[in-house]
Amino acid sequence: MTRGKFITLEGGEGVGKSTQAAMLSDALRARGLDVLLTREPGGTPGAEAIRALLLDSDLEIGARTEALLFAAARADHVQHAIAPALERGAWVVCDRFVDSSRAYQGGGDDLFDDAIMALHNIGSWGMMPDVTFLLTAESEEVARRLTERDGENADRIGGRSAEYHAGVADRFRTLAASDPERFICISADGSPQDVHDRIARAMAPLTGEGG
Amino acid sequence: MTRGKFITLEGGEGVGKSTQAAMLSDALRARGLDVLLTREPGGTPGAEAIRALLLDSDLEIGARTEALLFAAARADHVQHAIAPALERGAWVVCDRFVDSSRAYQGGGDDLFDDAIMALHNIGSWGMMPDVTFLLTAESEEVARRLTERDGENADRIGGRSAEYHAGVADRFRTLAASDPERFICISADGSPQDVHDRIARAMAPLTGEGG
Repeated sequence: MTRGKFITLEGGEGVGKSTQAAMLSDALRARGLDVLLTREPGGTPGAEAIRALLLDSDLEIGARTEALLFAAARADHVQHAIAPALERGAWVVCDRFVDSSRAYQGGGDDLFDDAIMALHNIGSWGMMPDVTFLLTAESEEVARRLTERDGENADRIGGRSAEYHAGVADRFRTLAASDPERFICISADGSPQDVHDRIARAMAPLTGEGG
Repeated sequence: MTRGKFITLEGGEGVGKSTQAAMLSDALRARGLDVLLTREPGGTPGAEAIRALLLDSDLEIGARTEALLFAAARADHVQHAIAPALERGAWVVCDRFVDSSRAYQGGGDDLFDDAIMALHNIGSWGMMPDVTFLLTAESEEVARRLTERDGENADRIGGRSAEYHAGVADRFRTLAASDPERFICISADGSPQDVHDRIARAMAPLTGEGG
């Protein structure tokens, strides 16, 4: 059995990752592929339980504890869902992975970024995606979508400031620039179908369509 | 303000660590010291929430995820309870700390022990106790106490086999032998007062009684 491909979608809040992950999974299934559609933090019962802790504002979790919890959730997700799916030949489409930890928690601090990668090496054998689609959008458009989606009910991360989100977007661009073999940047402008068409075109060489 | 002393109690299940931690705290308070009595995993709201996850048998958490969760609980405990107490000059008496992760999860595997210490360095600045009391008991006596205490309601860790507990006890002895400056081995034989008296005698040089 050939190992499946591991594809992640990354980007800031409100760029449409979840919608695109679902559309990409449907398109791959339509080609007859076995597909696991999943997300982080979460994707397994253990990781979902950890996700619930991470979203609980009352616990006042510090940055280092948060990094360990994200790594723990990812380790459970890799062990119980992603690795078994790839081994049985399925393709895995995952909404966020370790790049999100680097962009959100790393905060541009090289030492902390090293720590995040050390945690990923310990917890998840340093597993990296085959392809990562980075969805990029103008910050004004993102702010409009987030307000539309979350209103007053923003959670611990969604509820942060515009500068915070701009910093995250910058760090995603830096990560993409540092690993151009793995990252494909996709504009999130236009309708969900427009964005999906861009991703499908970029996927063509991988799915054997010859592009 | 002089930084307080950080004292941990370690050992397998059923050796009386919790009882001794409480008796030691009371004795230190009777000398007029400010004392924080705490335990792992737990000791802060965040760490208690993580502890609840760790004790949930239904989640089927793997060894690496477990190590990350213990490190996360410890990081929260150090950041929000232990470090602030020591900085205000309090003495901290803690029932279990990183040595328990090493004895229970490390399993005698050097690479995994290195990983546990790497997680401790990332999460908790590698903070180590000033003194660690290792309570040791014969395995038959421990089995008797555990049955008396837990009956049929043993949790994920308490419910493991006699060989498992013997292995843990061995690894604690190995840790103590590798760091004789920090560890003081105390026999858990006899009454709680007998054991407390041994600990109090060993503490005398630290509390300024001159032994």
